[in-house]
Amino acid sequence: MSLSTQPYKGARDFYPENKRLQKYMFAKMREISERFGYEEYDAPILEPTELYLSKGNQEIIDEQTYTFTDRGGRSVTIRTEMTPTVSRMVAGKRQELAYPVRWYSIPNLWRYERTQRGRLREFWQYNADIFGVEGVEAEHEAILLADQIMKGYGAKPEMYTIQLSSRKLIDDLFGAYLELDQTQSDMLIRLIDRMKKMPYESFVAQADAILTPTQRDNGTLDSLLQLLKIQRLDDLPSSYTNKPTVLRLRQLMDMLDSSRISNVIFDITLMRGFDYYTDMVFEVIDTNPENNRSMFGGGRYDGLVGLFGVEPVPTVGFAMGDVTLQNFLESHGLLPDLVTETDVYVVLAGTNTYEKAQRVLADMRDMGLHVAVDSSGRKLEKQIKTAVKKGIQYAIFIGEAELASDQFRLRNLADGTEEAHSLQRILSIVKDHRHTSDPVLDPNDIDL
Amino acid sequence: MSLSTQPYKGARDFYPENKRLQKYMFAKMREISERFGYEEYDAPILEPTELYLSKGNQEIIDEQTYTFTDRGGRSVTIRTEMTPTVSRMVAGKRQELAYPVRWYSIPNLWRYERTQRGRLREFWQYNADIFGVEGVEAEHEAILLADQIMKGYGAKPEMYTIQLSSRKLIDDLFGAYLELDQTQSDMLIRLIDRMKKMPYESFVAQADAILTPTQRDNGTLDSLLQLLKIQRLDDLPSSYTNKPTVLRLRQLMDMLDSSRISNVIFDITLMRGFDYYTDMVFEVIDTNPENNRSMFGGGRYDGLVGLFGVEPVPTVGFAMGDVTLQNFLESHGLLPDLVTETDVYVVLAGTNTYEKAQRVLADMRDMGLHVAVDSSGRKLEKQIKTAVKKGIQYAIFIGEAELASDQFRLRNLADGTEEAHSLQRILSIVKDHRHTSDPVLDPNDIDL
Repeated sequence: MSLSTQPYKGARDFYPENKRLQKYMFAKMREISERFGYEEYDAPILEPTELYLSKGNQEIIDEQTYTFTDRGGRSVTIRTEMTPTVSRMVAGKRQELAYPVRWYSIPNLWRYERTQRGRLREFWQYNADIFGVEGVEAEHEAILLADQIMKGYGAKPEMYTIQLSSRKLIDDLFGAYLELDQTQSDMLIRLIDRMKKMPYESFVAQADAILTPTQRDNGTLDSLLQLLKIQRLDDLPSSYTNKPTVLRLRQLMDMLDSSRISNVIFDITLMRGFDYYTDMVFEVIDTNPENNRSMFGGGRYDGLVGLFGVEPVPTVGFAMGDVTLQNFLESHGLLPDLVTETDVYVVLAGTNTYEKAQRVLADMRDMGLHVAVDSSGRKLEKQIKTAVKKGIQYAIFIGEAELASDQFRLRNLADGTEEAHSLQRILSIVKDHRHTSDPVLDPNDIDL
Repeated sequence: MSLSTQPYKGARDFYPENKRLQKYMFAKMREISERFGYEEYDAPILEPTELYLSKGNQEIIDEQTYTFTDRGGRSVTIRTEMTPTVSRMVAGKRQELAYPVRWYSIPNLWRYERTQRGRLREFWQYNADIFGVEGVEAEHEAILLADQIMKGYGAKPEMYTIQLSSRKLIDDLFGAYLELDQTQSDMLIRLIDRMKKMPYESFVAQADAILTPTQRDNGTLDSLLQLLKIQRLDDLPSSYTNKPTVLRLRQLMDMLDSSRISNVIFDITLMRGFDYYTDMVFEVIDTNPENNRSMFGGGRYDGLVGLFGVEPVPTVGFAMGDVTLQNFLESHGLLPDLVTETDVYVVLAGTNTYEKAQRVLADMRDMGLHVAVDSSGRKLEKQIKTAVKKGIQYAIFIGEAELASDQFRLRNLADGTEEAHSLQRILSIVKDHRHTSDPVLDPNDIDL
């Protein structure tokens, strides 16, 4: 009986063609993050389960995570998100860090869930967080960074919207304005979170069921439904338009507007991850009608670092998953054609050429060329076929004559042309080709 | 009660200063691998436990791995090495791949073991494998690649030796020459594997205990001890000097010599990972007397891909762990001083400057500069102190006057000098500084 060649269910093998795409996506995240002064960090994929229990979610731990007991009797969990981890790390050096701290990471995360489009059990997730800024500058920077990453992939503003809301505002509206108690407010938030996935009548009925008879008599349902129709800050109840939370949202929207981000909208129905967010929340939504869904988001969470027994740190962050991002890029035709990193395939002619060619191979590699050599000893045609199958742009032929003359036939495998050149000339031809064909290399970064 | 800020036992947090070092080590592995035409791949960190059971090691699975049952009743293991995984992946596309296949990966691996110097529960391991080459060219390339990576870190040949042996040769010597049976041979291999960690007399006594009375009478122990003293292929028993395995080893050593690798030695006592290797094995040993140990190694394993029910593929590979490598680089003084990737810290003066400075910040980022802005609203001195604490080389001051004139004061925080410049001039100063200070950037790769 032979072993299966399949990976574990809900997880992906990254063959070189897939890995290349991942590297393209990650390189862009790194490039843009570092332009904003963010520094990369990482942490172990296993965390003590307590880290997630702080949010009080034993049920989620049991049902949606990979949690097990190690042989020392400790309960460990494969990380499902990076926010608890990064909060732990900031807390661990609370006094030593120089604020504002800007950190990013691209961790591998696992969730035990039913697999579907955009959701696998295993995924990677870009995380960026700024610690130590109370002002709305932090929110502005987070959204600007997210927007720059999107634009870095070639996304146009009409391909996505950036939706904004505020947890503080919602709490205030549901409590002080609608006069709901905390339990009603929590139920309503969960209901609104799902409202776009159900018929409107069904939503209304379920919202009604949350209310008390007195609230029903007072017209609370109507007030709620009116609230949820609001699309601009100006349309909020008049007693709200000058509240600090609303002024802050307005200031943020003005700042984003002067940074020429034109696709920001206030969305009162945005109820994102309301477990640890303390104020502003945002989400980036794909406008493609076939994939009209939330791609990623974030917000302000000022309370998490404080859970570790140190003084709290104001924090704004967001996270972007690789699967959703890749779906977006595919559906908008933004994925570049990525080719192998190997520049040149060396085809060997004659006997014992492998050993004799080592000097030339070493020279090419020292020059920075990416060179694979065919050490199979097969016929020339077979060697060339292999290079073509691998998608390599150039083949170089090396035999006795070439080694004697230091002139090498360079064949362009895309168009079949062939010319003899010195290594220096070959280097410059390949260099030109690499510059025009590699979407990962940024011209500015090359210049630097 | 507050949460602990410690990571899981035996695993590491990578704060930016640690991550930078990891990125330096990994970037070098990637750079050199790609010069040899190797392509990066990856796979899920969880594998079905069967993948490791194929080697028949239930005891090792139970005691040295993180293995648990998922909620679907499947036994899964956090990968402990990459070789079974890469064999699975090659087998999965056995027919489609163009050979020779050259793949590399830098997976995160976990082993449940007592932590000690050079051994953690969590580590990263560079893996490089070449599939489809029967000839000794594959062994030559693997060792050349390993050697180039070492030299890429600045290692000198006198800092390490490359020890070579052959599993086929050992099998033949123990079976045909010493006339040991398979069980004796296996016991002896395990004993020799530990011989450098015990007094010689103790080794001799334990070797003697493996033999039968007849073997003792025939002088097998003496023959064994003589064999183990051999340091050159020429000193092997005369009936062996022309055996194909020995000729192959000799050819390999000649090829390495003509590639100017001067620190290769034949070591008959090398008994590395004898579970799946089928012929040549090698190890790289640190010559530092305080750390005189095997750092990493590999060899030929022609049988693994065939375990997945497809035609076997000849394979040579090796793997290099990050913890051992870092110890080596530290003990030989080869770790570069790595500084933050942030080029410039922007210090803001005056009111509402954050918003007004956005145009300039965007220009700097578009030029490829890595710019962190102080959005705290604190006094100038505090902002500058933060930049110094972060180890950033330059500060730029932005206030009303600078925004009006488009001339910005650039302060070199290392020497305190300060001059006003245009953005273009600042770009070129920072670019020069980055070129001379970043050990990750390879001058050849920049030229390309």
